[in-house]
Amino acid sequence: MYDISMTIKKDMLVYKGKEEIRPRLSTVRDFSQGDAHESELQMNVHTGTHVDAPLHMLEEGENADLFFAENPFYQAQLIDFTELEEKITKADLKDYEIEENSFVILKTKNSKPGFLEETPEKFIYLAKSGAEYLVDKKIKGVGIDTNGIERAQSDHPTHKKMLKQKIMILEGLRLNEIPAGNYILLLSLLKIANSDGLPGRAYLFEPGEIETMLKLFK
Amino acid sequence: MYDISMTIKKDMLVYKGKEEIRPRLSTVRDFSQGDAHESELQMNVHTGTHVDAPLHMLEEGENADLFFAENPFYQAQLIDFTELEEKITKADLKDYEIEENSFVILKTKNSKPGFLEETPEKFIYLAKSGAEYLVDKKIKGVGIDTNGIERAQSDHPTHKKMLKQKIMILEGLRLNEIPAGNYILLLSLLKIANSDGLPGRAYLFEPGEIETMLKLFK
Repeated sequence: MYDISMTIKKDMLVYKGKEEIRPRLSTVRDFSQGDAHESELQMNVHTGTHVDAPLHMLEEGENADLFFAENPFYQAQLIDFTELEEKITKADLKDYEIEENSFVILKTKNSKPGFLEETPEKFIYLAKSGAEYLVDKKIKGVGIDTNGIERAQSDHPTHKKMLKQKIMILEGLRLNEIPAGNYILLLSLLKIANSDGLPGRAYLFEPGEIETMLKLFK
Repeated sequence: MYDISMTIKKDMLVYKGKEEIRPRLSTVRDFSQGDAHESELQMNVHTGTHVDAPLHMLEEGENADLFFAENPFYQAQLIDFTELEEKITKADLKDYEIEENSFVILKTKNSKPGFLEETPEKFIYLAKSGAEYLVDKKIKGVGIDTNGIERAQSDHPTHKKMLKQKIMILEGLRLNEIPAGNYILLLSLLKIANSDGLPGRAYLFEPGEIETMLKLFK
């Protein structure tokens, strides 16, 4: 079992390193004033591990309520693109067999410790041609190891082409230690109504691993 | 598959109906000012479906980082206590066989549509004697169908006895449509560092149901 979720904290990696979107956890009550310790979280919904709703980039796009009824298990394929220096194109993807209705998880140099910390605005991204290719393959969703799936493309074609087809865009994964291969993705999203994105938790399991875990139960 | 999570929205049920703890989702960017729609969530971490950390009620208690490495699958038993009018005691629990290391889910009148809306401060709770009994049974966690597991007990013995043993207290479940019985609980929590509670998503599956779903994958 691999937990591929980011930890939400003040000094976490945020989109292009922007200070103003750092999450804040404030103590609203503690033992000096009462009998309990309670915190409040203030966070952009596109922080850390999260899914984008069509509304995020499409003016008439649906909000994330669309995802509430999703079954949290997905067939997933993790592809290692850590050799690429800039972006993932159709040419990079076409040698892989992409299953219809699967989740494609893109492991890039973004996962290398230190890489994004040094140049957060230069993250490796999915280029328009790569997005078009994945749309044609009728995938269920695509995951990537940074807070954005695209940069340096005018009018956000990667987001828009995928969101028009209601393909799930899962950003903010931690993939450094995960080898390429087939997995079961467990993706469970906070159920925030009327939102343009949903933070959540993502795990990868080896095929058969969940069944083995469940056998331990009566 | 039963999704037993609450939807996070302004008019949701909150602890004792307190207005000041209602979650807020604000639009921080939209298409009138830019090329994306982005929202920010401001929410007490004890809102909706969430787990309490020992720090919530114990001065020297651990924070919720304690739960980060948890396997998200649990053996669970849902017990129907919808006939009770006030609280769940040891006497109510002792006729049930409680498995060590399992999650005990308490379905009460709180789940009845309208009940908590009318008198949010009169929720059915787990009494001290019931908590002591479950601690003795060495359960992994306990879930209940409202935002609190206890009220009207001075010094919070239900919380404190369980949190001292690091038993997970899962509050804010929606159980109205779920029959009593054995389930697999899938509990996936947002990974917020240094918090006294973690909001998340909870599902119940019939025994064998997850295995059947996974068989559909290659």
